[in-house]
Amino acid sequence: MSWLLTEEHLEDLARGAAVLGTGGGGDPYVGRLLVRQAIREHGPVTILDPDEVEDDALVIPTAQMGAPTVVFEKLPSGSEPETALAALEKHLGAKATATMPIECGGINSMIPLVVGARTGLPVVDADGMGRAFPELQMETFGVYGVPGSPMAVAGEGGEVTVIDTGSDNRRMEWIARGVTIRLGGVAHIAEYSMSGADVKRTAIPRTLTLALKVGRAIREGRSSDPIARLEEALSETLYSNLRVLFRGKISDVERRTEAGFARGRAAAVSFDGEHELGIEFQNENLVAVVDGEVRCVVPDLICVLDSESAEPITTETLRYGQRVTVVGISTPDIMRTSEALATFGPAAFGLPHEFRPVEA
Amino acid sequence: MSWLLTEEHLEDLARGAAVLGTGGGGDPYVGRLLVRQAIREHGPVTILDPDEVEDDALVIPTAQMGAPTVVFEKLPSGSEPETALAALEKHLGAKATATMPIECGGINSMIPLVVGARTGLPVVDADGMGRAFPELQMETFGVYGVPGSPMAVAGEGGEVTVIDTGSDNRRMEWIARGVTIRLGGVAHIAEYSMSGADVKRTAIPRTLTLALKVGRAIREGRSSDPIARLEEALSETLYSNLRVLFRGKISDVERRTEAGFARGRAAAVSFDGEHELGIEFQNENLVAVVDGEVRCVVPDLICVLDSESAEPITTETLRYGQRVTVVGISTPDIMRTSEALATFGPAAFGLPHEFRPVEA
Repeated sequence: MSWLLTEEHLEDLARGAAVLGTGGGGDPYVGRLLVRQAIREHGPVTILDPDEVEDDALVIPTAQMGAPTVVFEKLPSGSEPETALAALEKHLGAKATATMPIECGGINSMIPLVVGARTGLPVVDADGMGRAFPELQMETFGVYGVPGSPMAVAGEGGEVTVIDTGSDNRRMEWIARGVTIRLGGVAHIAEYSMSGADVKRTAIPRTLTLALKVGRAIREGRSSDPIARLEEALSETLYSNLRVLFRGKISDVERRTEAGFARGRAAAVSFDGEHELGIEFQNENLVAVVDGEVRCVVPDLICVLDSESAEPITTETLRYGQRVTVVGISTPDIMRTSEALATFGPAAFGLPHEFRPVEA
Repeated sequence: MSWLLTEEHLEDLARGAAVLGTGGGGDPYVGRLLVRQAIREHGPVTILDPDEVEDDALVIPTAQMGAPTVVFEKLPSGSEPETALAALEKHLGAKATATMPIECGGINSMIPLVVGARTGLPVVDADGMGRAFPELQMETFGVYGVPGSPMAVAGEGGEVTVIDTGSDNRRMEWIARGVTIRLGGVAHIAEYSMSGADVKRTAIPRTLTLALKVGRAIREGRSSDPIARLEEALSETLYSNLRVLFRGKISDVERRTEAGFARGRAAAVSFDGEHELGIEFQNENLVAVVDGEVRCVVPDLICVLDSESAEPITTETLRYGQRVTVVGISTPDIMRTSEALATFGPAAFGLPHEFRPVEA
């Protein structure tokens, strides 16, 4: 059931990853260019279904870390995630048999593919967020007992830092964020090394194929109704509920790069001028409030789409005047347990709201 | 020529280290307590003359890193530098045969002694600053070709970070400072691992015995003239010139903890009210200006001493109204070469002054 990912997949994949990135995850266009170049130079990437991964395999996820506002302006060369992977392999004294995304969303759906193309390692079709989240401890891997440590952080100058905070993934995030800030606001990482058995137990399965499906549905739906087509495509997946939360025009965006994150809020007004939407974000969209009522909140997905093409709009490209359709998408059950909500539910972001499924 | 350092040495050593710390290096009283406890629990520490170190020995210096203003309030447990040492040994795949100070001054004359007492490792009587400096690249080790990387940073919770910036010691400092800030402003480190041959080639020799001699001279001189006694003791060493720069009363202190450092300035007025002294510091005293004229500048030592007892006063304990004698002390030739001045001369601190030996 393994398959080869080629250049032809990248447009749909980037679009789908941007939807699942729920506003964050880094610019998908940059990631797409990096993968395209790597595939042109080194050939296609083998994608492994999680069921195919041997229980005793050593899977080392790779990713980019940083504020999307910075990533947008500071392009990687493409070799940095390999440098992080090699540093972690050296520290562990063992070679990875596969890499994997830590999140599905934006550039971090792409970085492991760059590593896969350049090193020949297969990429597991799964991840630890089932969307994008801003912080490294916000992983189902960690929720279900896989430590993020030791992790490696690589800078563009070849600087390497290995961080070990034992089982404390929040502390790991805190130190790694400090290193990333010192590296200029963006870095590449390898972390949450785990066995194939742990992949099957803790990862959200098949989110690369999910992103492909989402990107394809939007493209194919453009001749008629892309949102309806997206809803239909999602109905067959673990993300089975889509709700249109709002249609209108962006009326205000406040964005700042703070402590290594892009934080802020956006507002929109309905086309008839009668309704208001407010969104708060920390790299990713966290909560959508319509006319004073919470309509969708983390970990469910809040996706801002162009109202004509349904092209996803990331938080760093939100602009006054954009005409948007905002949709909420339900997350898989593994992301809604009490342990999961303790790590990446509303309270983990300091939000006062209770989690309530978007379909409820 | 190796000898045993015992509890009886600590009072003189702490005082001498505070003088050579030239206002910084961390609080010597805290360091003295840590060594005392370690010696009481584990026995005395073997001090090795640098000439005794085998050329193929693996010497790994250990130290504390952070702003003295924080160190003063956040006491280490004593095991942190060992944790850093062990992490670096593991990374290198080799065991240290000795440890060594990276600077002679304040707490960092003491930390390697804590490690020596607790682990049984001998401590080499030498260091890489010949005084205290605020930044990790300011080492004769680095000036003469020994890289600081890889280095290990340990936090109080057992968190460990290993940083490798190749031969770029300034970049290592930058990242390690970021990690230290995230660890609360103080951390413990192991870095500049080197051979015994490199110790002999790049270190300032016999600075532990120098600190002991300085501390003893001040104590013994208290019945008559401690400054004169100090000058006499120094005349037989590589630090052979002492000049009294100023006598007066501290009239103003401005101090802030900024970007992980204690920065600021102090002013004093002579007892007759006719003359003014200004000192700028970054953890350590950098320049002393009397009546508008530079009288002493890095890397030469500027030491603020109590005018009665000649007890050294660190930058974080400077207070309005203290009666002080400020002395300048010349540094060894190895610290005044053009390579050395490029790394820790006035320009390295952004000061506009040319280096001029205090004895000139």
